[in-house]
Amino acid sequence: MYVTETQIRIHYALTDQMGVVYHGHYAEFYEIGRAEAMRHLGFTYKDIEAMGIIMPVVDIHSRFLRPAKYDDLITVKTTLSELPAHHKVVFHSEIFNEQGALLNTGDVTLYLMEAKNMKRCEMPAVLKEKLKKYFTSSI
Amino acid sequence: MYVTETQIRIHYALTDQMGVVYHGHYAEFYEIGRAEAMRHLGFTYKDIEAMGIIMPVVDIHSRFLRPAKYDDLITVKTTLSELPAHHKVVFHSEIFNEQGALLNTGDVTLYLMEAKNMKRCEMPAVLKEKLKKYFTSSI
Amino acid sequence: MYVTETQIRIHYALTDQMGVVYHGHYAEFYEIGRAEAMRHLGFTYKDIEAMGIIMPVVDIHSRFLRPAKYDDLITVKTTLSELPAHHKVVFHSEIFNEQGALLNTGDVTLYLMEAKNMKRCEMPAVLKEKLKKYFTSSI
Amino acid sequence: MYVTETQIRIHYALTDQMGVVYHGHYAEFYEIGRAEAMRHLGFTYKDIEAMGIIMPVVDIHSRFLRPAKYDDLITVKTTLSELPAHHKVVFHSEIFNEQGALLNTGDVTLYLMEAKNMKRCEMPAVLKEKLKKYFTSSI
Repeated sequence: MYVTETQIRIHYALTDQMGVVYHGHYAEFYEIGRAEAMRHLGFTYKDIEAMGIIMPVVDIHSRFLRPAKYDDLITVKTTLSELPAHHKVVFHSEIFNEQGALLNTGDVTLYLMEAKNMKRCEMPAVLKEKLKKYFTSSI
Repeated sequence: MYVTETQIRIHYALTDQMGVVYHGHYAEFYEIGRAEAMRHLGFTYKDIEAMGIIMPVVDIHSRFLRPAKYDDLITVKTTLSELPAHHKVVFHSEIFNEQGALLNTGDVTLYLMEAKNMKRCEMPAVLKEKLKKYFTSSI
Repeated sequence: MYVTETQIRIHYALTDQMGVVYHGHYAEFYEIGRAEAMRHLGFTYKDIEAMGIIMPVVDIHSRFLRPAKYDDLITVKTTLSELPAHHKVVFHSEIFNEQGALLNTGDVTLYLMEAKNMKRCEMPAVLKEKLKKYFTSSI
Repeated sequence: MYVTETQIRIHYALTDQMGVVYHGHYAEFYEIGRAEAMRHLGFTYKDIEAMGIIMPVVDIHSRFLRPAKYDDLITVKTTLSELPAHHKVVFHSEIFNEQGALLNTGDVTLYLMEAKNMKRCEMPAVLKEKLKKYFTSSI
């Protein structure tokens, strides 16, 4: 299991007239969480695109428990529960406010695809290698 | 069953560097579909807020089948399958391009809540009345 | 002078917690106005990109007079005062609400550039031809 | 003169199909710069709203020199050149990439207004006091 955390400060543009963060912005928070999870491995999503691979989102499921508000410093906890075997990668995100209350959860499924022909592909070996150590079972 | 359709032209701001609409914007397309579904009943979401009721989104599930692209004129088909009995309202959205290909589906659950105390409430009678005729069973 | 008008319905995502449209979204309204101005000529910005030309924005000046609000149906009036002689194109936008009150004005300068080498270029002849009739002096 | 700097990582949602940050997002970068400038004084814009004061943007002038790109870590340098005497506050923003190249400049004018009656007002004394030391002339 690979787990990382990153923080985001809520700016005014993200709020709506209910006085809370507009629900459509959570997909961006998950995206930021995934990008920082990769960077933490010493690898960026930008590097992946430079290798000719893109990772389009194919499925998102979000649950909204409590609203995030203006100026909140939220924490996005991003979990990769399984080492991707094929073209499919699933991230689980949990978003907390500064008081530690769980605001939102998101399950995001992405596909690994070759940009040149839009064919599904496997994770680049260099990235898989970096991830492996987080998924070695102890028994 | 209550079904309506509305169209949206994709502007540049909605695209990302993959050359397609950024996945986070589909929640806005569903929102526009719901708003137009209500307007078609002769009632707006603005009217609902003016009655002291808000409808926060509590759950969204999106499936991304094909990308929408710049300048596409997409059709958002919004379906209310059941007349809401209590505080919960579920909309189903399907998004098509001009060639009729299904691009995306979304299931959005909202709660009806009193803005003043954030308590769950029922749908305003005036709106329920307008919806009823779409849900009268034929047997 | 070439003048066109287009309408935009304000959806919830565009509002902020001041209860008005977030100021950052007006750049999108100007963009939609420009795109529809071109479409009205029988030519789209998508066609321009297909010809290998892009039009990055190099300068925007916005004045905010009155706020646009949720569910407002705003009118974007887009004016091209001069037929572009070289690589520079200047659009002037005025945004009105349904009562005809002027909400906002924007001056947007774009450059015509060849995508392949990022060199400034002239407007494609086919587009210039379509625009010419709006700029023939009467004397 | 009061000058502060803050950094922003460009995420995918901010890019467009030109492969650069969409021009409409720079207004958000200026906003984040202003918010952090205030926070650095030990005071937040949230505190200002809690005092019944809002600060709507009334004018923005942006110049786009070079594009910001995906995953860039940009620096927003925010300058308040004059201690606001009345209801008007002018911030100047400069945005740099990691190589120190100037990408964009923005001049943003805001008004201080009482939320309850939308009348222009002066800066709260507590905030003015904190700012004063940056504007004491040396002669």
